[in-house]
Amino acid sequence: MADKKKMVEAITSMEEDFAQWYTDVVKRAELIDYSSVKGCLIIKPAGYALWENIQADLDRRFKETGVENVYMPMFIPESLLNKEKDHVEGFAPEVAWVTHGGGSELEERMCVRPTSETLFCDFYKNDIQSYRDLPRVYNQWCSVVRWEKTTRPFLRSREFLWQEGHTMHETAEDAEERTVQMLNVYADFCRETLAIPTIRGKKTDKEKFAGAEATYTIEAMMHDGKALQSGTSHNFGDGFAHAFEIQFTGRDNKLHTPHQTSWGLSTRIIGAMIMVHGDNDGLVLPPRIAPTQVVIIPIQQRKEGVLEMAGKLAEALSDVRVKVDDSDKSPGFKFAEQEMRGFPIRIEIGPKDIENGNCVVCRRDTREKYTVELSEIHDFTVKLLDTIHNDMYERAEKHLKENIFDAKTYDEFKDIADNKPGFIRAMWCGETECEEKIKSDTTVTSRCMPWEDKERISETCVCCGKSAKHLVYWGKAY
Amino acid sequence: MADKKKMVEAITSMEEDFAQWYTDVVKRAELIDYSSVKGCLIIKPAGYALWENIQADLDRRFKETGVENVYMPMFIPESLLNKEKDHVEGFAPEVAWVTHGGGSELEERMCVRPTSETLFCDFYKNDIQSYRDLPRVYNQWCSVVRWEKTTRPFLRSREFLWQEGHTMHETAEDAEERTVQMLNVYADFCRETLAIPTIRGKKTDKEKFAGAEATYTIEAMMHDGKALQSGTSHNFGDGFAHAFEIQFTGRDNKLHTPHQTSWGLSTRIIGAMIMVHGDNDGLVLPPRIAPTQVVIIPIQQRKEGVLEMAGKLAEALSDVRVKVDDSDKSPGFKFAEQEMRGFPIRIEIGPKDIENGNCVVCRRDTREKYTVELSEIHDFTVKLLDTIHNDMYERAEKHLKENIFDAKTYDEFKDIADNKPGFIRAMWCGETECEEKIKSDTTVTSRCMPWEDKERISETCVCCGKSAKHLVYWGKAY
Repeated sequence: MADKKKMVEAITSMEEDFAQWYTDVVKRAELIDYSSVKGCLIIKPAGYALWENIQADLDRRFKETGVENVYMPMFIPESLLNKEKDHVEGFAPEVAWVTHGGGSELEERMCVRPTSETLFCDFYKNDIQSYRDLPRVYNQWCSVVRWEKTTRPFLRSREFLWQEGHTMHETAEDAEERTVQMLNVYADFCRETLAIPTIRGKKTDKEKFAGAEATYTIEAMMHDGKALQSGTSHNFGDGFAHAFEIQFTGRDNKLHTPHQTSWGLSTRIIGAMIMVHGDNDGLVLPPRIAPTQVVIIPIQQRKEGVLEMAGKLAEALSDVRVKVDDSDKSPGFKFAEQEMRGFPIRIEIGPKDIENGNCVVCRRDTREKYTVELSEIHDFTVKLLDTIHNDMYERAEKHLKENIFDAKTYDEFKDIADNKPGFIRAMWCGETECEEKIKSDTTVTSRCMPWEDKERISETCVCCGKSAKHLVYWGKAY
Repeated sequence: MADKKKMVEAITSMEEDFAQWYTDVVKRAELIDYSSVKGCLIIKPAGYALWENIQADLDRRFKETGVENVYMPMFIPESLLNKEKDHVEGFAPEVAWVTHGGGSELEERMCVRPTSETLFCDFYKNDIQSYRDLPRVYNQWCSVVRWEKTTRPFLRSREFLWQEGHTMHETAEDAEERTVQMLNVYADFCRETLAIPTIRGKKTDKEKFAGAEATYTIEAMMHDGKALQSGTSHNFGDGFAHAFEIQFTGRDNKLHTPHQTSWGLSTRIIGAMIMVHGDNDGLVLPPRIAPTQVVIIPIQQRKEGVLEMAGKLAEALSDVRVKVDDSDKSPGFKFAEQEMRGFPIRIEIGPKDIENGNCVVCRRDTREKYTVELSEIHDFTVKLLDTIHNDMYERAEKHLKENIFDAKTYDEFKDIADNKPGFIRAMWCGETECEEKIKSDTTVTSRCMPWEDKERISETCVCCGKSAKHLVYWGKAY
């Protein structure tokens, strides 16, 4: 297995340097490449195919809840960005400005959208006249630009792909219901499709979206114990609507201001998937999102009947995403490549197997091997794909649960922050000052307050000792 | 039918003012809205659903030919845009420039991509090392920006959605083959999915893409006889590859320069679809792309059993894109709305129909009505959708054929240009001077030289009288 060794040596082990392991994997599995455009990535076919599958699955879930897709301009005139005070303060420092077009200077400069609340509000202002026009539940798939100083593949780049939903509702209750509904769509998608368990909760005021009344989040735990915010859903109340003077005639024939939400999930989620499931041989793709679910590798493929049988197996598996690797490379190289690229199942078929009426099935996640009768291959494989998904979810959930630690005193908190990777649960007084002190002392930030916000593990804030208001999940974050 | 009259009066008739008819239809059928961003459109749900269906169909066709999707940055550094002389001359005057990011001035300004040949070449330079890396057949779905002075919905806007394929090949023959293959994919898609006949051909040097060796085009004829360039495929030879110093080690172990193609189709095609098939009542959508193929309209919907039967019909039609319009609007309003939005089939079902075991099926394109037994509705509707597609194609093809006129003298040419809408076939000497004279005399431009370029309708150039080299299709163009 010299080929395999060679390929595996190309990536740093995660125990040695997790950040380098991540960078090596995204490059060696050919998900991305660096471009001449500073801070912007090239998403290569293997990476983009993941995004296409994510889009298709999530888009189906959106449409089941009544979402309609639209497309807004990519530019925002400066005066429009400036309309909502908190929003512009949050985003203006990190936008890219277009100042010239068609050979002349623009009368008003425009930024490339960092997010599109302002454009949707500007549109809804004329589009919504009556309660009959509500709710509006629109979404767009697009790229956005935020001028980050340090960038990392999928996790943080100056341009990234995402979807952004922007909705308008008749009542505050309707808006809150939609905010929660979409967070649940994200959490369900992570669990059912990506095999990623998440903690759902509410952001503190310090961490919420610029201009939002409340931000809900799903937080996933990476293999190194760090948190990755994987999807957010915001309730804006009627703040933007007031700023943009959006009004509708209600059922009482009087003018009312609608209530607004927005929610987004980006290519970051690919980073989460890699750091939750990957191992020292490369990617481990969740079966339901893997562009190739099964790769069939012929052994001694020039021997009579081998390629033919590989083709027959592929035919039997035509309802899953299967391919035969009949390239000129050695089987050892093909095995290593399948592992690096994270295809969930590998089927090996050679002359001896054919003689015995069997083939060898090897799963990527555990490397377990099974000898399977050729006639059983379809049912066995389809079932195994589900088993792999469930096992991957269970392992990730076990990892998550085993790495959540309760801290009742600040010494305990600092000790855990220094010595244990994972999330910390601790009580908090509700003051931003304490959040900031914790961050500066430990580099740990508040991830979220739990969904129900009823549990109490002590009576006092872990930082200042005053009366505690909320239980908070804390963690180091990507 | 007062409701219908009211809705129909809202659009100008095409005989009165075709341009105004078009603008009225895109707005009243709720495909687009205007935005505060000058020259940029909002694509509303009914418009975006068309683009989603176009994407899905075309993407499937691409993948069948081995295309892989990727994503490149949206920005192009000025030095990169400047690398190929003809290309920068063609595009620099109409780009938008980003000069500031993250609060400071950029060291080098970047344009928002007007097209991405330069980015792909910059990437391929490192990506392609050996003949084993070829061909590269990549495509991206994205938006591009061209700073147009005058804009029209779908036809010309400062930002538009499209796909751009960029391929690299070992030999000139391979590149030419791919160029032609993709033009045929576009032509097949127009015929089989949009029911639009096109003329395939080659652009003159004056009209070809900036930097290309040859540009192939499909040209469709709108209802008013004008041409709309509906998709283009370019063979770049090795010009860009030389400029970007892309080389690979060939089978002979020597360095070679690869040959390149690019090809694109944009949201313009939605404009073509509207102007080929639409009528004075609004849109007429080709069935295979229509987001709603069948709308069921209950008559006297409060009467017992009516809504129930509408639901049963929808269930029977669950393998087509069907919806029941059970809103509070009057049937007359619903009929007019179905016609405005161009849904191919309307099914009317009321108490009397139920009593007789029938329903009424009405097709949008011809307005023919059929009384159909309830038990026959599935097979009848599925068959009718195909019939509508075929009839729409035939009518469009008849219109195209009847409006192509041969001109052997310049007087004939000018007479046709002045008095007959449609395309003109005339011989041409091959000199740009004559093309320019024709354009300035008649506003007619060369659309393309026919695929085979063998037919001759006279011996001399229709403009200068010198020896003719090519037969050319001429027309007024969008």
